[in-house]
Amino acid sequence: MAQDKSDFVITNGMHPADIADALWQDVDINRARELFDDMDVAQGALVLAEADEKLQGALLEARDPQVIANYLNLLSVDDGVDVLNGLSDALRLEALCFVDSETATELRHLTSYPEKSAGGMMTTEFISVAESERVADVIKLIKGDEGEAESVYVIFVVNAVNILQGVITTRELLELEENDSVGESMNPDVISARVDEDREEIARRILRYNLSLLPIVDARNSIIGVVSSDDALEVVEEEGSEDALLLAGASGDSDAGEPLLEMVGHRAPYLAIPVGAGLVMSKVMEHFTRVPTTVADDVYSTLVIAFVPMVLALSGTVGMQTSAVLVRGFAVGQIVRGRRLSVFLSEVRVGVVLGLLSALVAGPAMGLIIGDYYVGTMLSLALWLSIIWTNTVATSIVVGSEAAGLDPALVAGPVMIAVSDLSAVALFLGVASKLIV
Amino acid sequence: MAQDKSDFVITNGMHPADIADALWQDVDINRARELFDDMDVAQGALVLAEADEKLQGALLEARDPQVIANYLNLLSVDDGVDVLNGLSDALRLEALCFVDSETATELRHLTSYPEKSAGGMMTTEFISVAESERVADVIKLIKGDEGEAESVYVIFVVNAVNILQGVITTRELLELEENDSVGESMNPDVISARVDEDREEIARRILRYNLSLLPIVDARNSIIGVVSSDDALEVVEEEGSEDALLLAGASGDSDAGEPLLEMVGHRAPYLAIPVGAGLVMSKVMEHFTRVPTTVADDVYSTLVIAFVPMVLALSGTVGMQTSAVLVRGFAVGQIVRGRRLSVFLSEVRVGVVLGLLSALVAGPAMGLIIGDYYVGTMLSLALWLSIIWTNTVATSIVVGSEAAGLDPALVAGPVMIAVSDLSAVALFLGVASKLIV
Repeated sequence: MAQDKSDFVITNGMHPADIADALWQDVDINRARELFDDMDVAQGALVLAEADEKLQGALLEARDPQVIANYLNLLSVDDGVDVLNGLSDALRLEALCFVDSETATELRHLTSYPEKSAGGMMTTEFISVAESERVADVIKLIKGDEGEAESVYVIFVVNAVNILQGVITTRELLELEENDSVGESMNPDVISARVDEDREEIARRILRYNLSLLPIVDARNSIIGVVSSDDALEVVEEEGSEDALLLAGASGDSDAGEPLLEMVGHRAPYLAIPVGAGLVMSKVMEHFTRVPTTVADDVYSTLVIAFVPMVLALSGTVGMQTSAVLVRGFAVGQIVRGRRLSVFLSEVRVGVVLGLLSALVAGPAMGLIIGDYYVGTMLSLALWLSIIWTNTVATSIVVGSEAAGLDPALVAGPVMIAVSDLSAVALFLGVASKLIV
Repeated sequence: MAQDKSDFVITNGMHPADIADALWQDVDINRARELFDDMDVAQGALVLAEADEKLQGALLEARDPQVIANYLNLLSVDDGVDVLNGLSDALRLEALCFVDSETATELRHLTSYPEKSAGGMMTTEFISVAESERVADVIKLIKGDEGEAESVYVIFVVNAVNILQGVITTRELLELEENDSVGESMNPDVISARVDEDREEIARRILRYNLSLLPIVDARNSIIGVVSSDDALEVVEEEGSEDALLLAGASGDSDAGEPLLEMVGHRAPYLAIPVGAGLVMSKVMEHFTRVPTTVADDVYSTLVIAFVPMVLALSGTVGMQTSAVLVRGFAVGQIVRGRRLSVFLSEVRVGVVLGLLSALVAGPAMGLIIGDYYVGTMLSLALWLSIIWTNTVATSIVVGSEAAGLDPALVAGPVMIAVSDLSAVALFLGVASKLIV
């Protein structure tokens, strides 16, 4: 295996994204650093732009600040910000000293925004022109761009104080007369985003309105950057993974194939929740197996206990379904502020129906297993109540945490399951023993 | 409430995406149809393009085929395909009779591909030119496009029999001399996809290589369509939701705020799994509460049973963590064919460590609760074994189902949990009673 891995070579014409992937996954980190050193600065910069944060860190760790600055000079500023965010504070400051002064200023400015905000993901490399500009001059500007701007296909039109007035595409420019002014032909309805908005909101807006470039404005509506649909695509992918992982009780940046220690670190903390809940439940279980009954022997409490695993499995599944539907509903913008109450009510209603269906199936089966249909029916009724309860708790937790400004995915997983499991089991045992005894 | 809803009006300058959203969520369906009828055909077509499948169906259901044809003539062919896919077979054929013959041919061709393949999501509206073409002529072609092509910013270069030779962007064209031929300046390394590839694979490629337009080729490498990064964004979002929902045991197209009957239909089938597993487990529980022991009373079996909820909660959480990490790993392309075995082994290893950590925490707590540290340690050992077991089962199911060509998200949720819960509880009870008695 190790032999195979060190045999890896970078072939000509290999895409930087594939090189980055191979450096991270196919070779060990020392070999990756060697291979990276063998590249010229231009290729190295392309690979860094495609590398994820962990690989960037591994490749640049303990490098000479001047070497890092060479890469930063070649990277687009938004990629440069990602690289800088992975460095230690000291190394970041040193490296910036060797970067071209204009780029360094941009980088300092952009690293001041929170990483997960519009400011943290935008680039300042875009084309904006005055309303009075002639079409021919704008096309000349595009021709002279030489790969600087994120996109030359969307051009923003601004007034004298840089306030966004409209937008025009290269496609539209090419169809106009050379002497037209862009102000006459631009589209004045520009969808933009504020610099402090969350990156999920930015991605959602790009997706909703099929934008290729979203302008980012400051509080005065002055355009200060752009976010491209490429960046949105990455955010949507990361957020989708994050939601699925958080719901399942694993840290949102878990990664298949990461080192053992990281795997454990990303998952172990969440296990404290079922362990804690389980210990409390053991006391509940013990209480109900020992409760004195009016019937001759305590066969009934044993029977009631035998159905606890089903109550747990069912309430867990119902709660997870509700969480996932609501978490994704919030994530993709299906549920907006004004619809929270109606969503809450319909989730409660679905819990009543799902509980009823489960009880109708489980009731006769329980009766058959214990050989007593009256007791089976009572168990089934307790099951129904505990499902209604669980689902209401799950809905309240998810909708409530979103309303309180928390990420619902974070609380909707193991925390919610622990709360609903515990209360569902206690409710089931309590109701069932009351009904039967 | 009903009053508020019927008060909704479409204001001038409202974005078609917002209109579609409001028609689906803010008004009842009859009012939505009225509002839709009040729009002119052009605006209606824009709204249909933004509407999801359910809304498209609701708006067009039982319409005159000729009216539907008017919309189809104005929609881009990929949006037209989506609309057609939502119609009944009879209505689809009738509507196509009234569509312009050229568009109708395209639509018939495109609807013949599976909906979730590259063919089902591509459009045939793109620009391709011969290698010998002069730059000035290509720019003239772009100027004359009038909004037909999906994008005029990426131009594909083909030979005489339409085989893809290279790609050139409008940005590059604008920087060239008017008399250059595109063949000299094009980039011959084109990333393309075959028409039968899965839409997830298409989205992954667009994301990986930051493409704005991915050319789709047939078996001869002849270009027959394109997929844009917009479409990829939608797929990535849908797949992210689908994975989270399937993992939680809800149908992948569940929707927050859908009608009660649909909510129940999307979730109820999965509940059969915990109900069935719970019924089987009740027999297992019963067996262990009644097993004759060599100790004086059966207090030990009661104690063992008291920890079953913790075993269930822990094995469920560990199994879900593993599933989510692997399912997303496959979805985003972290895990590729050659890495399956190493991923399997590292997941087994992490199960051993997570189980050990849980056992080390739970052991003393169990000992404390039951007032007997020897028994606590034995319970803890049984717990460790059952976590190792659960995690190995979960990993095998996910990796195995992916290797067998099944969607791992589909089996990784409630099915996997039921299998691992059942076997974990049986293993725990069996081992614990052997160790303690």
